[in-house]
Amino acid sequence: MSSRSRPLVHPFDVEVPQLREEAAVNNGDPHEDTVIMKDVQGMPGTSVGLALRLFQFAFAAVSVAVMAATSDFPSVTAFRYLVAALSLQCLWSLSLAIVDVYALLVKRCLRNSRVLGFFTIGDGITSTLTFAAACASAGITVLISSDFNNCAENHCTRFETSTAMAFVSWFLVFPSFFLNFWSLASR
Amino acid sequence: MSSRSRPLVHPFDVEVPQLREEAAVNNGDPHEDTVIMKDVQGMPGTSVGLALRLFQFAFAAVSVAVMAATSDFPSVTAFRYLVAALSLQCLWSLSLAIVDVYALLVKRCLRNSRVLGFFTIGDGITSTLTFAAACASAGITVLISSDFNNCAENHCTRFETSTAMAFVSWFLVFPSFFLNFWSLASR
Repeated sequence: MSSRSRPLVHPFDVEVPQLREEAAVNNGDPHEDTVIMKDVQGMPGTSVGLALRLFQFAFAAVSVAVMAATSDFPSVTAFRYLVAALSLQCLWSLSLAIVDVYALLVKRCLRNSRVLGFFTIGDGITSTLTFAAACASAGITVLISSDFNNCAENHCTRFETSTAMAFVSWFLVFPSFFLNFWSLASR
Repeated sequence: MSSRSRPLVHPFDVEVPQLREEAAVNNGDPHEDTVIMKDVQGMPGTSVGLALRLFQFAFAAVSVAVMAATSDFPSVTAFRYLVAALSLQCLWSLSLAIVDVYALLVKRCLRNSRVLGFFTIGDGITSTLTFAAACASAGITVLISSDFNNCAENHCTRFETSTAMAFVSWFLVFPSFFLNFWSLASR
Protein backbone atom coordinates (compact mmCIF):
# COMPACT_ATOMS: atom_id res chain seq x y z
CA MET A 1 0.00 0.00 0.00
CA SER A 2 2.62 2.57 1.08
CA SER A 3 4.83 1.93 -1.94
CA ARG A 4 2.07 2.82 -4.41
CA SER A 5 3.14 5.57 -6.83
CA ARG A 6 0.82 8.56 -6.89
CA PRO A 7 0.12 11.08 -9.67
CA LEU A 8 1.45 14.56 -9.14
CA VAL A 9 -1.98 16.08 -9.61
CA HIS A 10 -4.34 14.44 -7.10
CA PRO A 11 -7.74 13.62 -8.64
CA PHE A 12 -9.81 13.83 -5.44
CA ASP A 13 -12.98 12.56 -7.05
CA VAL A 14 -11.23 9.22 -7.67
CA GLU A 15 -9.13 8.97 -4.49
CA VAL A 16 -11.94 9.39 -1.99
CA PRO A 17 -14.16 6.42 -3.00
CA GLN A 18 -11.08 4.24 -3.42
CA LEU A 19 -9.88 4.97 0.12
CA ARG A 20 -13.32 4.39 1.56
CA GLU A 21 -13.51 0.97 -0.09
CA GLU A 22 -10.10 -0.02 1.27
CA ALA A 23 -11.11 1.10 4.74
CA ALA A 24 -14.29 -0.94 4.50
CA VAL A 25 -12.36 -4.04 3.42
CA ASN A 26 -9.48 -3.73 5.88
CA ASN A 27 -11.10 -2.45 9.06
CA GLY A 28 -14.58 -3.91 8.81
CA ASP A 29 -16.68 -0.74 8.53
CA PRO A 30 -19.72 -1.37 10.78
CA HIS A 31 -22.08 0.22 8.26
CA GLU A 32 -20.86 -2.14 5.52
CA ASP A 33 -21.22 -5.17 7.83
CA THR A 34 -24.74 -4.26 8.79
CA VAL A 35 -25.79 -3.94 5.16
CA ILE A 36 -24.25 -7.29 4.18
CA MET A 37 -25.39 -9.33 7.16
CA LYS A 38 -28.88 -7.95 7.78
CA ASP A 39 -30.27 -10.16 5.00
CA VAL A 40 -29.60 -13.46 6.80
CA GLN A 41 -32.72 -14.33 8.77
CA GLY A 42 -32.20 -16.72 11.67
CA MET A 43 -29.25 -14.88 13.18
CA PRO A 44 -29.42 -13.23 16.64
CA GLY A 45 -31.69 -10.20 16.69
CA THR A 46 -33.92 -11.31 13.81
CA SER A 47 -37.52 -12.54 14.00
CA VAL A 48 -36.63 -15.97 12.56
CA GLY A 49 -33.80 -16.23 15.11
CA LEU A 50 -36.30 -15.50 17.89
CA ALA A 51 -38.71 -18.11 16.50
CA LEU A 52 -35.89 -20.71 16.40
CA ARG A 53 -35.01 -19.98 20.05
CA LEU A 54 -38.65 -20.27 21.16
CA PHE A 55 -39.10 -23.62 19.35
CA GLN A 56 -35.81 -24.93 20.80
CA PHE A 57 -37.05 -23.98 24.26
CA ALA A 58 -40.49 -25.49 23.69
CA PHE A 59 -39.25 -28.88 22.43
CA ALA A 60 -36.57 -29.13 25.12
CA ALA A 61 -39.15 -28.31 27.80
CA VAL A 62 -41.56 -30.95 26.46
CA SER A 63 -38.74 -33.52 26.40
CA VAL A 64 -37.78 -32.81 30.02
CA ALA A 65 -41.42 -32.80 31.15
CA VAL A 66 -42.26 -36.13 29.46
CA MET A 67 -39.12 -37.82 30.81
CA ALA A 68 -39.55 -36.42 34.32
CA ALA A 69 -43.17 -37.64 34.37
CA THR A 70 -42.04 -41.29 34.22
CA SER A 71 -41.52 -42.84 37.62
CA ASP A 72 -38.46 -44.96 36.81
CA PHE A 73 -36.24 -42.53 34.90
CA PRO A 74 -33.80 -41.91 37.82
CA SER A 75 -32.73 -45.58 37.71
CA VAL A 76 -31.07 -45.11 34.27
CA THR A 77 -28.03 -42.80 34.04
CA ALA A 78 -28.70 -41.83 30.41
CA PHE A 79 -32.23 -40.66 31.22
CA ARG A 80 -30.98 -38.60 34.19
CA TYR A 81 -28.37 -37.09 31.85
CA LEU A 82 -31.10 -36.32 29.28
CA VAL A 83 -33.08 -34.38 31.87
CA ALA A 84 -29.97 -32.43 32.91
CA ALA A 85 -28.78 -31.63 29.38
CA LEU A 86 -32.21 -30.64 28.08
CA SER A 87 -32.79 -28.45 31.13
CA LEU A 88 -29.57 -26.62 30.28
CA GLN A 89 -30.79 -26.31 26.68
CA CYS A 90 -34.07 -24.84 27.98
CA LEU A 91 -32.28 -22.21 30.04
CA TRP A 92 -29.87 -21.29 27.21
CA SER A 93 -32.59 -20.99 24.55
CA LEU A 94 -34.88 -19.01 26.85
CA SER A 95 -32.06 -16.60 27.73
CA LEU A 96 -31.21 -15.99 24.08
CA ALA A 97 -34.91 -15.61 23.22
CA ILE A 98 -35.13 -12.83 25.83
CA VAL A 99 -32.00 -11.19 24.34
CA ASP A 100 -33.56 -11.46 20.86
CA VAL A 101 -36.79 -9.85 22.07
CA TYR A 102 -34.78 -6.99 23.57
CA ALA A 103 -32.75 -6.58 20.35
CA LEU A 104 -35.91 -6.54 18.23
CA LEU A 105 -37.69 -4.06 20.50
CA VAL A 106 -34.85 -1.50 20.64
CA LYS A 107 -33.78 -2.37 17.05
CA ARG A 108 -30.25 -3.05 18.19
CA CYS A 109 -27.76 -5.04 16.10
CA LEU A 110 -26.25 -7.96 18.08
CA ARG A 111 -23.74 -8.94 15.41
CA ASN A 112 -20.32 -7.93 16.68
CA SER A 113 -17.51 -10.47 16.98
CA ARG A 114 -17.60 -10.94 20.76
CA VAL A 115 -21.35 -11.48 20.97
CA LEU A 116 -21.27 -13.84 17.97
CA GLY A 117 -18.34 -15.77 19.48
CA PHE A 118 -20.14 -16.14 22.82
CA PHE A 119 -23.37 -17.28 21.12
CA THR A 120 -21.47 -19.71 18.85
CA ILE A 121 -19.57 -21.34 21.73
CA GLY A 122 -22.73 -21.57 23.83
CA ASP A 123 -24.73 -23.05 20.96
CA GLY A 124 -21.91 -25.50 20.21
CA ILE A 125 -21.72 -26.75 23.81
CA THR A 126 -25.47 -27.01 24.41
CA SER A 127 -26.16 -28.64 21.03
CA THR A 128 -23.39 -31.21 21.61
CA LEU A 129 -24.76 -32.05 25.08
CA THR A 130 -28.33 -32.25 23.75
CA PHE A 131 -27.31 -34.51 20.86
CA ALA A 132 -25.29 -36.78 23.16
CA ALA A 133 -28.25 -37.08 25.55
CA ALA A 134 -30.66 -37.80 22.70
CA CYS A 135 -28.38 -40.48 21.24
CA ALA A 136 -27.77 -42.18 24.60
CA SER A 137 -31.52 -42.22 25.33
CA ALA A 138 -32.26 -43.49 21.83
CA GLY A 139 -29.79 -46.35 22.32
CA ILE A 140 -31.45 -47.42 25.57
CA THR A 141 -34.99 -46.92 24.27
CA VAL A 142 -34.25 -49.14 21.27
CA LEU A 143 -32.59 -51.67 23.59
CA ILE A 144 -35.71 -51.85 25.78
CA SER A 145 -38.34 -51.79 23.06
CA SER A 146 -36.74 -53.74 20.17
CA ASP A 147 -33.89 -55.84 21.55
CA PHE A 148 -35.50 -56.92 24.85
CA ASN A 149 -39.19 -56.50 23.81
CA ASN A 150 -39.83 -55.34 27.34
CA CYS A 151 -42.37 -52.55 26.84
CA ALA A 152 -44.91 -54.12 29.19
CA GLU A 153 -42.81 -53.22 32.23
CA ASN A 154 -41.38 -49.94 30.92
CA HIS A 155 -42.80 -46.61 29.68
CA CYS A 156 -41.54 -47.14 26.12
CA THR A 157 -43.84 -44.56 24.53
CA ARG A 158 -42.80 -41.85 26.96
CA PHE A 159 -39.11 -42.64 26.53
CA GLU A 160 -39.53 -42.52 22.73
CA THR A 161 -41.45 -39.24 22.85
CA SER A 162 -38.87 -37.62 25.10
CA THR A 163 -36.00 -38.82 22.89
CA ALA A 164 -37.74 -37.59 19.73
CA MET A 165 -38.37 -34.14 21.26
CA ALA A 166 -34.69 -33.98 22.26
CA PHE A 167 -33.64 -34.73 18.66
CA VAL A 168 -36.03 -32.06 17.33
CA SER A 169 -34.61 -29.55 19.82
CA TRP A 170 -31.06 -30.39 18.69
CA PHE A 171 -32.15 -30.08 15.06
CA LEU A 172 -33.44 -26.57 15.78
CA VAL A 173 -30.26 -25.47 17.57
CA PHE A 174 -28.22 -26.46 14.52
CA PRO A 175 -29.29 -23.56 12.20
CA SER A 176 -28.58 -21.02 14.95
CA PHE A 177 -25.12 -22.49 15.54
CA PHE A 178 -24.39 -22.78 11.83
CA LEU A 179 -25.39 -19.18 11.01
CA ASN A 180 -23.46 -17.77 13.98
CA PHE A 181 -20.36 -19.78 13.12
CA TRP A 182 -20.55 -18.93 9.43
CA SER A 183 -20.91 -15.20 10.04
CA LEU A 184 -18.12 -15.33 12.64
CA ALA A 185 -15.79 -17.09 10.20
CA SER A 186 -16.70 -14.95 7.20
CA ARG A 187 -15.77 -11.58 8.70
CA MET B 1 -18.40 0.39 -9.23
CA SER B 2 -19.76 1.31 -12.63
CA SER B 3 -20.98 4.72 -11.47
CA ARG B 4 -17.52 5.81 -10.25
CA SER B 5 -16.38 9.09 -11.83
CA ARG B 6 -13.04 8.89 -13.62
CA PRO B 7 -10.48 11.63 -14.38
CA LEU B 8 -10.23 12.77 -17.99
CA VAL B 9 -6.48 12.01 -18.09
CA HIS B 10 -6.02 8.33 -17.11
CA PRO B 11 -3.06 7.87 -14.72
CA PHE B 12 -2.19 4.24 -15.65
CA ASP B 13 0.39 3.82 -12.92
CA VAL B 14 -2.33 4.31 -10.32
CA GLU B 15 -5.19 2.46 -12.01
CA VAL B 16 -3.38 -0.87 -12.48
CA PRO B 17 -2.58 -1.73 -8.83
CA GLN B 18 -6.01 -0.52 -7.79
CA LEU B 19 -7.73 -2.86 -10.23
CA ARG B 20 -5.54 -5.78 -9.20
CA GLU B 21 -6.44 -5.28 -5.54
CA GLU B 22 -10.14 -5.13 -6.34
CA ALA B 23 -9.85 -8.32 -8.35
CA ALA B 24 -8.06 -10.01 -5.45
CA VAL B 25 -10.80 -8.97 -3.03
CA ASN B 26 -13.77 -9.73 -5.29
CA ASN B 27 -12.74 -12.86 -7.16
CA GLY B 28 -10.44 -14.56 -4.68
CA ASP B 29 -7.09 -14.43 -6.46
CA PRO B 30 -5.61 -17.97 -6.07
CA HIS B 31 -2.17 -16.59 -5.30
CA GLU B 32 -3.53 -14.45 -2.45
CA ASP B 33 -5.47 -17.43 -1.03
CA THR B 34 -2.46 -19.71 -1.12
CA VAL B 35 -0.35 -17.21 0.77
CA ILE B 36 -2.96 -16.67 3.46
CA MET B 37 -4.06 -20.29 3.95
CA LYS B 38 -0.82 -22.23 3.64
CA ASP B 39 0.03 -21.41 7.25
CA VAL B 40 -2.82 -23.44 8.77
CA GLN B 41 -1.52 -26.94 9.54
CA GLY B 42 -4.17 -29.64 9.83
CA MET B 43 -5.97 -28.76 6.62
CA PRO B 44 -6.12 -31.15 3.63
CA GLY B 45 -2.75 -31.57 1.96
CA THR B 46 -0.64 -30.78 5.05
CA SER B 47 1.40 -33.20 7.13
CA VAL B 48 -0.64 -32.52 10.29
CA GLY B 49 -3.80 -33.12 8.27
CA LEU B 50 -2.41 -36.46 7.14
CA ALA B 51 -1.48 -37.37 10.73
CA LEU B 52 -5.03 -36.50 11.89
CA ARG B 53 -6.53 -38.74 9.19
CA LEU B 54 -4.24 -41.66 10.09
CA PHE B 55 -5.08 -41.37 13.80
CA GLN B 56 -8.81 -41.14 13.00
CA PHE B 57 -8.50 -44.30 10.95
CA ALA B 58 -6.46 -46.12 13.60
CA PHE B 59 -8.80 -45.39 16.52
CA ALA B 60 -11.91 -46.16 14.45
CA ALA B 61 -10.37 -49.46 13.32
CA VAL B 62 -9.47 -50.42 16.92
CA SER B 63 -13.01 -49.56 18.05
CA VAL B 64 -14.57 -51.74 15.33
CA ALA B 65 -12.12 -54.59 15.99
CA VAL B 66 -12.70 -54.63 19.77
CA MET B 67 -16.49 -54.49 19.38
CA ALA B 68 -16.55 -57.13 16.65
CA ALA B 69 -14.44 -59.45 18.81
CA THR B 70 -17.21 -59.73 21.42
CA SER B 71 -19.59 -62.58 20.76
CA ASP B 72 -22.83 -60.87 21.82
CA PHE B 73 -22.60 -57.50 20.10
CA PRO B 74 -25.16 -58.35 17.34
CA SER B 75 -27.91 -58.70 19.96
CA VAL B 76 -27.80 -54.96 20.75
CA THR B 77 -28.84 -52.50 18.02
CA ALA B 78 -26.60 -49.70 19.27
CA PHE B 79 -23.50 -51.91 19.12
CA ARG B 80 -24.34 -53.03 15.56
CA TYR B 81 -24.77 -49.36 14.66
CA LEU B 82 -21.39 -48.56 16.25
CA VAL B 83 -19.68 -51.15 14.08
CA ALA B 84 -21.40 -49.78 10.94
CA ALA B 85 -20.72 -46.09 11.69
CA LEU B 86 -17.10 -46.63 12.70
CA SER B 87 -16.47 -48.78 9.62
CA LEU B 88 -17.71 -45.85 7.50
CA GLN B 89 -15.41 -43.55 9.47
CA CYS B 90 -12.49 -45.93 8.77
CA LEU B 91 -13.15 -45.89 5.02
CA TRP B 92 -13.58 -42.09 4.90
CA SER B 93 -10.43 -41.34 6.92
CA LEU B 94 -8.35 -43.86 4.96
CA SER B 95 -9.53 -42.39 1.63
CA LEU B 96 -8.67 -38.85 2.70
CA ALA B 97 -5.31 -40.03 4.07
CA ILE B 98 -4.49 -41.45 0.63
CA VAL B 99 -5.56 -38.15 -0.98
CA ASP B 100 -3.35 -36.27 1.49
CA VAL B 101 -0.36 -38.52 0.71
CA TYR B 102 -0.88 -37.85 -3.00
CA ALA B 103 -1.17 -34.08 -2.41
CA LEU B 104 2.00 -34.07 -0.29
CA LEU B 105 3.98 -36.14 -2.82
CA VAL B 106 3.12 -34.02 -5.86
CA LYS B 107 2.98 -30.82 -3.74
CA ARG B 108 -0.49 -30.03 -4.96
CA CYS B 109 -2.80 -27.59 -3.15
CA LEU B 110 -6.18 -29.17 -2.35
CA ARG B 111 -7.78 -25.98 -1.11
CA ASN B 112 -10.32 -24.89 -3.69
CA SER B 113 -13.96 -24.31 -2.77
CA ARG B 114 -15.42 -27.52 -4.25
CA VAL B 115 -12.87 -29.84 -2.66
CA LEU B 116 -13.20 -28.05 0.69
CA GLY B 117 -17.00 -28.21 0.48
CA PHE B 118 -16.90 -31.96 -0.27
CA PHE B 119 -14.46 -32.63 2.59
CA THR B 120 -16.48 -30.47 5.00
CA ILE B 121 -19.79 -32.19 4.23
CA GLY B 122 -18.16 -35.64 4.42
CA ASP B 123 -16.46 -34.83 7.72
CA GLY B 124 -19.69 -33.39 9.10
CA ILE B 125 -21.71 -36.50 8.22
CA THR B 126 -19.14 -39.07 9.39
CA SER B 127 -18.37 -37.19 12.62
CA THR B 128 -22.08 -36.88 13.44
CA LEU B 129 -22.62 -40.61 12.83
CA THR B 130 -19.52 -41.52 14.86
CA PHE B 131 -20.55 -39.28 17.76
CA ALA B 132 -24.10 -40.67 17.74
CA ALA B 133 -22.77 -44.24 17.77
CA ALA B 134 -20.34 -43.46 20.59
CA CYS B 135 -23.06 -41.82 22.69
CA ALA B 136 -25.55 -44.65 22.16
CA SER B 137 -22.90 -47.25 23.08
CA ALA B 138 -21.86 -45.20 26.09
CA GLY B 139 -25.46 -45.07 27.31
CA ILE B 140 -25.83 -48.85 27.07
CA THR B 141 -22.38 -49.56 28.51
CA VAL B 142 -23.15 -47.37 31.55
CA LEU B 143 -26.57 -49.06 31.84
CA ILE B 144 -24.98 -52.52 31.92
CA SER B 145 -21.98 -51.74 34.12
CA SER B 146 -23.31 -49.15 36.59
CA ASP B 147 -27.10 -49.29 36.62
CA PHE B 148 -27.54 -53.10 36.37
CA ASN B 149 -24.11 -54.12 37.79
CA ASN B 150 -24.16 -56.97 35.31
CA CYS B 151 -20.53 -57.16 34.19
CA ALA B 152 -20.18 -60.82 35.12
CA GLU B 153 -22.34 -61.87 32.17
CA ASN B 154 -21.25 -59.15 29.73
CA HIS B 155 -17.98 -57.98 28.17
CA CYS B 156 -18.06 -54.62 29.95
CA THR B 157 -14.35 -53.88 29.49
CA ARG B 158 -14.53 -54.51 25.75
CA PHE B 159 -17.66 -52.39 25.36
CA GLU B 160 -16.01 -49.58 27.33
CA THR B 161 -12.79 -49.79 25.29
CA SER B 162 -14.67 -49.74 22.00
CA THR B 163 -16.80 -46.77 23.09
CA ALA B 164 -13.76 -44.84 24.29
CA MET B 165 -11.94 -45.45 20.98
CA ALA B 166 -15.03 -44.23 19.10
CA PHE B 167 -15.04 -41.03 21.17
CA VAL B 168 -11.31 -40.49 20.50
CA SER B 169 -11.90 -41.00 16.77
CA TRP B 170 -14.73 -38.42 16.82
CA PHE B 171 -12.51 -36.03 18.78
CA LEU B 172 -9.85 -36.33 16.05
CA VAL B 173 -12.35 -35.73 13.20
CA PHE B 174 -13.43 -32.49 14.83
CA PRO B 175 -10.26 -30.42 14.05
CA SER B 176 -10.38 -31.53 10.39
CA PHE B 177 -14.04 -30.56 10.11
CA PHE B 178 -13.52 -27.28 11.96
CA LEU B 179 -10.55 -26.18 9.83
CA ASN B 180 -12.27 -27.12 6.55
CA PHE B 181 -15.47 -25.33 7.56
CA TRP B 182 -13.63 -22.24 8.78
CA SER B 183 -11.56 -21.91 5.61
CA LEU B 184 -14.67 -22.52 3.48
CA ALA B 185 -16.60 -19.81 5.32
CA SER B 186 -13.75 -17.30 5.41
CA ARG B 187 -13.24 -17.11 1.65
